[in-house]
Amino acid sequence: MDRGEQQLIDLVNAWAKYSEATPDADVAGFCLHYLTETAQPAVLNQHSPVASPDGLYDEKWVESLTGTANRSLTEIRPSSRLAALVGRLSKYGYFYSKKAMFPLNFKSIEEPVYLIVLAQMGTPKKSELIYEMMVEFASGIDVVNRLVGMGYIEEFPDENDRRSKRLRITEAGLTILQECFPVMNRVADVAYSSLTEGEKALLIQILDKLDRYHAEHYKLSKNAGFDEVYDRMVT
Amino acid sequence: MDRGEQQLIDLVNAWAKYSEATPDADVAGFCLHYLTETAQPAVLNQHSPVASPDGLYDEKWVESLTGTANRSLTEIRPSSRLAALVGRLSKYGYFYSKKAMFPLNFKSIEEPVYLIVLAQMGTPKKSELIYEMMVEFASGIDVVNRLVGMGYIEEFPDENDRRSKRLRITEAGLTILQECFPVMNRVADVAYSSLTEGEKALLIQILDKLDRYHAEHYKLSKNAGFDEVYDRMVT
Repeated sequence: MDRGEQQLIDLVNAWAKYSEATPDADVAGFCLHYLTETAQPAVLNQHSPVASPDGLYDEKWVESLTGTANRSLTEIRPSSRLAALVGRLSKYGYFYSKKAMFPLNFKSIEEPVYLIVLAQMGTPKKSELIYEMMVEFASGIDVVNRLVGMGYIEEFPDENDRRSKRLRITEAGLTILQECFPVMNRVADVAYSSLTEGEKALLIQILDKLDRYHAEHYKLSKNAGFDEVYDRMVT
Repeated sequence: MDRGEQQLIDLVNAWAKYSEATPDADVAGFCLHYLTETAQPAVLNQHSPVASPDGLYDEKWVESLTGTANRSLTEIRPSSRLAALVGRLSKYGYFYSKKAMFPLNFKSIEEPVYLIVLAQMGTPKKSELIYEMMVEFASGIDVVNRLVGMGYIEEFPDENDRRSKRLRITEAGLTILQECFPVMNRVADVAYSSLTEGEKALLIQILDKLDRYHAEHYKLSKNAGFDEVYDRMVT
């Protein structure tokens, strides 16, 4: 039997197993299932160079963090590699967003995102908005104060709790948001338009699952120490 | 012909086309190719609810940014959805890293990453290290000064340029790094271990491609305005 024949037999056998277990089996669903459930990293990385597997651990970390990796993905733990990649990509997004937001007098995309989240929340307490933004309180307060100063957010006393203040978006805030949306889309295009539509769809599918997982655990983890978080989330 | 038969014929035809063009065709490579080059988002999102396609644009943005989306991915532009997801995931990572780094007296994972990058660069100028970290100069200086204060980095005069200072990691810096590596891996596990190995491999494959693309454009974009960046990177 030649190699291509064997591969075709493997393919059809995998399909048979999948379609037996899946009522509305289709080709795209099969491919996704095969890759995410069956395939191992080594299979996917077949085109990457493979360096000596021992002793280079820290060095690989260094490379992956600084973008100079020779891309031999097998030596570094996949979760650590992912953490480094997501961190770097979010920095690129921030870098481009700063440039894009400059004409609108925003420091970065973070500020219009505060407005969007506030618009959705309605009239939250300051602390509630900052909690939702997942930032440290001190830096959250800085952004809120800046947006108040720009006239996009207003503070008002809480009727039920005189010591507390609530926030709401102003008319000017809603207006500037309408200007921001197309700019934010342009930043997203710079960051992600080099991917194919299929790649984007795959990424969204996996990252969305991850986002839901973390949204659920974030509230539980808010006041917990790291060991408690680790024990709950890593099995 | 029944539905399953038609799907199997589609699968084998797609395989035939792929294996003809690909010398070492295998099943995993085929699946990845099919999803990233052939499949459309609508196909992959078949299980997502589909809301009314018009008028909800901004609201979908809001939802996607605050994690309360009903996950109907078809209405929001994929690039924008990705930007929001990557931003949120990096915030979760930062949140967990702060907790994990607390016993080591670091504010977040950012500080040991400075040490790692510095260890790799050798004896860079301050500005070179901060450039590599992709942060604003003022916040980069704060981190460097803090690490100098902790004894993990030392400054020394540049032999060729007396006005300038260079940095290098200290013995204490190298020692603390050895303590940091396992902690950083634990943070990565909290962030990504809920994915399957196949999902991680897929993510790495796509994000790595994106990272290389941005590493290449970052240098060109450093001093450019956003419109210039957009015109060069989005076609």
